[in-house]
Amino acid sequence: MRDGSAFLNERANGIADGMVHEAERLRIAVSKGALGCRLINAGAGVQGSIEAGLRMAEICMGGLGNVAVTLEPEGRWPFSVEVHSSQPVLACLGSQYAGWNLSVEKYFAMGSGPVRILAGVEPLFEVLTYRETASHSVVVLETADPPPEAVVQKVSKATGVAPENLTFVYAPTQSIAGTVQIAARVLEVALHKAKDIGFPIDNIVEGIARAPIPSPHPDFMTAMGRTNDAIIYGGLAHIYVNGSAKDARELAEKLPSGSSRDYGEPFAEIFKRFKGDFYAIDPLLFSPAEVIVTALETGETFRAGKRDFDRLNWGG
Amino acid sequence: MRDGSAFLNERANGIADGMVHEAERLRIAVSKGALGCRLINAGAGVQGSIEAGLRMAEICMGGLGNVAVTLEPEGRWPFSVEVHSSQPVLACLGSQYAGWNLSVEKYFAMGSGPVRILAGVEPLFEVLTYRETASHSVVVLETADPPPEAVVQKVSKATGVAPENLTFVYAPTQSIAGTVQIAARVLEVALHKAKDIGFPIDNIVEGIARAPIPSPHPDFMTAMGRTNDAIIYGGLAHIYVNGSAKDARELAEKLPSGSSRDYGEPFAEIFKRFKGDFYAIDPLLFSPAEVIVTALETGETFRAGKRDFDRLNWGG
Amino acid sequence: MRDGSAFLNERANGIADGMVHEAERLRIAVSKGALGCRLINAGAGVQGSIEAGLRMAEICMGGLGNVAVTLEPEGRWPFSVEVHSSQPVLACLGSQYAGWNLSVEKYFAMGSGPVRILAGVEPLFEVLTYRETASHSVVVLETADPPPEAVVQKVSKATGVAPENLTFVYAPTQSIAGTVQIAARVLEVALHKAKDIGFPIDNIVEGIARAPIPSPHPDFMTAMGRTNDAIIYGGLAHIYVNGSAKDARELAEKLPSGSSRDYGEPFAEIFKRFKGDFYAIDPLLFSPAEVIVTALETGETFRAGKRDFDRLNWGG
Repeated sequence: MRDGSAFLNERANGIADGMVHEAERLRIAVSKGALGCRLINAGAGVQGSIEAGLRMAEICMGGLGNVAVTLEPEGRWPFSVEVHSSQPVLACLGSQYAGWNLSVEKYFAMGSGPVRILAGVEPLFEVLTYRETASHSVVVLETADPPPEAVVQKVSKATGVAPENLTFVYAPTQSIAGTVQIAARVLEVALHKAKDIGFPIDNIVEGIARAPIPSPHPDFMTAMGRTNDAIIYGGLAHIYVNGSAKDARELAEKLPSGSSRDYGEPFAEIFKRFKGDFYAIDPLLFSPAEVIVTALETGETFRAGKRDFDRLNWGG
Repeated sequence: MRDGSAFLNERANGIADGMVHEAERLRIAVSKGALGCRLINAGAGVQGSIEAGLRMAEICMGGLGNVAVTLEPEGRWPFSVEVHSSQPVLACLGSQYAGWNLSVEKYFAMGSGPVRILAGVEPLFEVLTYRETASHSVVVLETADPPPEAVVQKVSKATGVAPENLTFVYAPTQSIAGTVQIAARVLEVALHKAKDIGFPIDNIVEGIARAPIPSPHPDFMTAMGRTNDAIIYGGLAHIYVNGSAKDARELAEKLPSGSSRDYGEPFAEIFKRFKGDFYAIDPLLFSPAEVIVTALETGETFRAGKRDFDRLNWGG
Repeated sequence: MRDGSAFLNERANGIADGMVHEAERLRIAVSKGALGCRLINAGAGVQGSIEAGLRMAEICMGGLGNVAVTLEPEGRWPFSVEVHSSQPVLACLGSQYAGWNLSVEKYFAMGSGPVRILAGVEPLFEVLTYRETASHSVVVLETADPPPEAVVQKVSKATGVAPENLTFVYAPTQSIAGTVQIAARVLEVALHKAKDIGFPIDNIVEGIARAPIPSPHPDFMTAMGRTNDAIIYGGLAHIYVNGSAKDARELAEKLPSGSSRDYGEPFAEIFKRFKGDFYAIDPLLFSPAEVIVTALETGETFRAGKRDFDRLNWGG
């Protein structure tokens, strides 16, 4: 896509407007936050909803992805979240990936959403050159607390968007909406891992994926475990790539979560084993269980990994 | 949701407007009825359509539910109707349940749709306290005959909506649209039974369900049998609830149709056995075959019942 | 539907406008063609997208069909294209069928889309009497080359639509969008074969179908093979018909691809065996593998054929 438009930010802002318009129905709370920014609380002290989670995921993807509840024919969890994008790199890496560290003092949050394109401060944006300028933007946060003034300031400064034109949508991991929007990262993690293992991301042209929707859990650790399990043991992604069939095959072989040394245990156990140090866990673990890669250049398709529904032990 | 808005009635009226706009495509007939009310005939002497049935179901739910054709991975009927609502109590109990007796003299009809919230005359509305006021409203009827003047009058009087602002959408059980809108009650019956067995309905926060779409049958009894079979033997519902895990477990155990003493035969046979006395049938039978209940308080999930696709003997 | 409106052409033109509006996102190219017509290139020298293919399919069906990516529970290709229409005869035969020969000199193309209704020059339109008049129209072409002046002229003359109000959407068989829009013909081929074997098409009232999405292949022959395999070996269609149960049963028995003498080999092999003479292949082959026909008159359902996912050997 051409630089300079406000494509993803405008679309995301439109979806946020829709959430505000239907706040009651989505069981979310809208208020004014620090420096006049707009706050959409989708799960902290409010119940939120699956529908709110789907919309958060669509905001995360800058309006470039379809996110819907569908069925899951195998296993014990009969409903899944399905994600499809014909612009997966921009939608998932450019926008959805929670890669912008917005932590200030005791406030910890990784920013997700098209605001990241405006800021362009992450190393990822050395590879991904698409930029936007926009008057409005949206930040998605997996947290229970609204951003303090310092965070709003930081975002405003880095993006040039006035605080009152910024929307922060947040929901903790344990909430219904949080659970859904995290499971909806099943395609994003595949693309992110592809980038990490050196696959040229410009060669990724299509992505479809799904993961079973885990039931939310009130405990943070357990909730985080379930949402990661949904992807690592229950996720399936099919991507189309340009470039050689050799590269596509290699990508398929390396991409599934099973290629990680930490694969096997429930994610919450792994997390405990590493004493809660997220960044000590093998990054190769964060990927769908089953991956299909189609090489457009030769029309070949490569497959690796296998979903293991028996590992989705989500309390029943 | 807050009282006083016209949320469900406005949404339903908008969907009805859309049906009128596309009447030809949906193979339905629009006309003026008694006292100037609007009639949408979706299946009596007109062919109607699956699409018309989906829209009727969305009207029934006051626009608070998504109703779509999806696939059914098991059994011999490869397409199902999927219903999702993040406001299941209002959508299903407040609106979709056909609980308002609109029979006058020889005319028999149970009113469904958001009009019931305006009237608020059923005992259910002692438990469900949400109310609306609206200038327009929609009534859905499972019948082949348009409402006579006395019925239109009764609805107008009970709701304060002028007859010319009332829309009656009707289709008999045997029609394509009727079949679809009845199968789409798969979530509603689960909620209604939950209420009947004493579960506090305010604790129900999410609902997703599906049921195979039965092929329509020209005989009323057989058609009614099939649409009930779709839910009783082919229905699956997943609901999220607040409250204790103990209550959630108990709900799951009691909710499936299999907990009824009348479970087992094709519904048409059961109906005949009770000599057509609908109200003599064990009300516990009216529920999905398979139920999953997630207790948000503890993150546990409870399961009971099992769909039995072999019982869906719908003439082929 | 009533004659005289511009229903299908207007809807198709609206969808084409939407494609133009989102050209970048869909990775398609928009330009002016011969005599000022509008060209939408969805796959020749441009990458295109699955989303573009879905929209092409919706244009093909004159906006009377829903076309979406869904999952495929069986086999190795986990995503399929699902097509649903409550006006299947108009959508598929009147509009989608690529039946208008627009070849001029060396340019070979079969026109698909609602433009065919305006022209009404095919023998099919002796049976299908619905006509439209419209100021704008859309032609879909499975080709890599934009139409030359003579073709634009021919279309304009036959339809009375000024060249500048004509849109040509084209994508070759090998492209992503081409692959998707061809697989989306899974319902259309069923209806076309029904017509060919003498079933009265006015009796067909509903149609739902799906086929696995084949991975695109850069070689024309292989690509054509895969898209045909998707339908012939992987396609499933459920149609509702009026008329006698006897006729419905006969239709079900004859309809599946397996009733053809040429059934069995990969389509590309069959094509080679017939030395590339498409019209020498048994036309009965072009149909979904598995067919379900419901006779509305008696409520009976007839089934024949079986999908054979092992035959979908699409390079991995």
